[in-house]
Amino acid sequence: MLGTGRMGAGIVDLLLRTEGVELTGVYARRRERAGLDVGEAVGLGRPLGIAVSGGLAALCRTTRPHVAIQATCSRVSDARDEIATLVTHGVNVISIAEEMAYPRVTSDDIAAALDALAVANSVTVLGTGINPGFVLDTLAIALSGVCQRVDRIRAQRVNDLAPYGPTVLAAQGVGLEPAAFREGVERGEVVGHVGFPQSIAMIGQALGWTIERVEEQREPIVSRVERRTALVTVQPGRVAGCLHTATAYAAGRPVIELVHPQQIRPELEGVATGDSIAITGRPSFEFSARPEIPGGIATVALAVNMVAHVMNAAPGLRTMAELPVPAAVVGDVRRRLRVPLEAATRG
Amino acid sequence: MLGTGRMGAGIVDLLLRTEGVELTGVYARRRERAGLDVGEAVGLGRPLGIAVSGGLAALCRTTRPHVAIQATCSRVSDARDEIATLVTHGVNVISIAEEMAYPRVTSDDIAAALDALAVANSVTVLGTGINPGFVLDTLAIALSGVCQRVDRIRAQRVNDLAPYGPTVLAAQGVGLEPAAFREGVERGEVVGHVGFPQSIAMIGQALGWTIERVEEQREPIVSRVERRTALVTVQPGRVAGCLHTATAYAAGRPVIELVHPQQIRPELEGVATGDSIAITGRPSFEFSARPEIPGGIATVALAVNMVAHVMNAAPGLRTMAELPVPAAVVGDVRRRLRVPLEAATRG
Repeated sequence: MLGTGRMGAGIVDLLLRTEGVELTGVYARRRERAGLDVGEAVGLGRPLGIAVSGGLAALCRTTRPHVAIQATCSRVSDARDEIATLVTHGVNVISIAEEMAYPRVTSDDIAAALDALAVANSVTVLGTGINPGFVLDTLAIALSGVCQRVDRIRAQRVNDLAPYGPTVLAAQGVGLEPAAFREGVERGEVVGHVGFPQSIAMIGQALGWTIERVEEQREPIVSRVERRTALVTVQPGRVAGCLHTATAYAAGRPVIELVHPQQIRPELEGVATGDSIAITGRPSFEFSARPEIPGGIATVALAVNMVAHVMNAAPGLRTMAELPVPAAVVGDVRRRLRVPLEAATRG
Repeated sequence: MLGTGRMGAGIVDLLLRTEGVELTGVYARRRERAGLDVGEAVGLGRPLGIAVSGGLAALCRTTRPHVAIQATCSRVSDARDEIATLVTHGVNVISIAEEMAYPRVTSDDIAAALDALAVANSVTVLGTGINPGFVLDTLAIALSGVCQRVDRIRAQRVNDLAPYGPTVLAAQGVGLEPAAFREGVERGEVVGHVGFPQSIAMIGQALGWTIERVEEQREPIVSRVERRTALVTVQPGRVAGCLHTATAYAAGRPVIELVHPQQIRPELEGVATGDSIAITGRPSFEFSARPEIPGGIATVALAVNMVAHVMNAAPGLRTMAELPVPAAVVGDVRRRLRVPLEAATRG
């Protein structure tokens, strides 16, 4: 396990509750965490008898895991070195770094290098998570499977940022004046959602659309009421979040539209949270859920639920659209393995 | 292509519109169709210059297809001989026979024999369709992938039988007195939906539930109003369709509940058609669509959309839960192939 933040803690907790999984080690980037008991570092409330490690290569050599889950970062550039270390030690990798859902979007070179390294070491590397990784891409792709013709896919996720911390709120511009929000977008401080280009590339690749360009827009969600959370109070006229949208074009027309407004307490203005996938084609239909699938719980679940799929997969860099559909794990995860654990590749 | 009925006609039509696909031949069981032009046999309104064949083995030898789609039957016992003929000629098979979605439920022996035959001939056999094959199983499995814990899955499909023919209506008991409906269930004439055991087995296998028993119920949907279609008029007090449900138990408790009422014109009593998947666990959520995904269009689409996935798959008998998620085909389907067509297995 790589990472002891909120996601890392959730994944450690789920791994401990998953039959057939042995947690062999935990790596943290933060130096001050090295040597702490993992249970203490991730806030489990009990010691695990495993010390957090600050040296990834050494950890691979001593613990020889079959699979590592990376929850340390969001960007390919930031994820690549850890992944390369794991792969060269013969460890399969599941990353929840957003850009790793479809790393070719960020860099064809890095993706090709990671793919070649994974193939050379007979392991599989997968990026996953709720978004990108599932709601706005894998699920949309799966639903398109019932279509004889698809003219357009519109996928939307409306969530509530109230449970999130200050870093996430700042990235969505929560609390800013509208003018400051626009300046923040210009300067790259208000980033909105990380993942649209990845989701679009995954859908385009899976269906066969040659995406010519992607237009992204980040608009302030200006609150008309006072919205308050434990961390922040937004007065009327201030920004409650970021309406981030992306439209992808193929053959000159819009084919994929992704909509992801992220704000605190949308219900105060009568906005319901939820996920929806609308496909226009033959047939046209819309699948939706209210409220939205909770992102943190789901990202943790996907990372753990894909473990056996990754161990079963052909070596190389893979996307969610290339592996079998994810499935919750009931009972012993080892029953899912095509090759018994003793014979499987091991770091 | 095997079959020139309603589904066969739809598949032929879609194959002709799919870039990168060449329709090499069509086989029909009905002897009177042999020799007819395919376009005439399936009602395309134009000749295709291909004659319907009544001899499957000879058709395989002369046309050497990469993939065959079987739309001739519902039961494994009825599908197996054609599949065996195709497989021994080196042809990959996609079957829309309901029981082929998970053939081990019907017969472990037949499934094992087909799997061995497929492996020996380096081809893949897949069963698919809207239901079983997608809405009440593959989609439910995929959605479970965001769950850290699943206590129960309830999947429901409410449809309208108005577009269907007399065979389908009779199988749901449409027009019968309630007492005659119950006798029909006893005698096996009112069958309801074919596919619950297959969907349950697929979900159980994918998640890891050991299913101990499945309880199926077929109840008459007694109409309170007059319901009329082009084919039939149902008076108040008579049966408008069959409420077919199945509950699967693992470790002594119900874990999967599938609900599929099939009736004519449910809207006349205020019942909306639709699909829904409700998962109780961590998290709990429900995805739904109104109206339901149209079954005929979707089954045709799935059969064609899985062509490249089947050609890319490891040899053997496969289920939808073992292959990558389905995806609509935009553009040339050959771009999806891992191995170029010239080098691919060929019948």
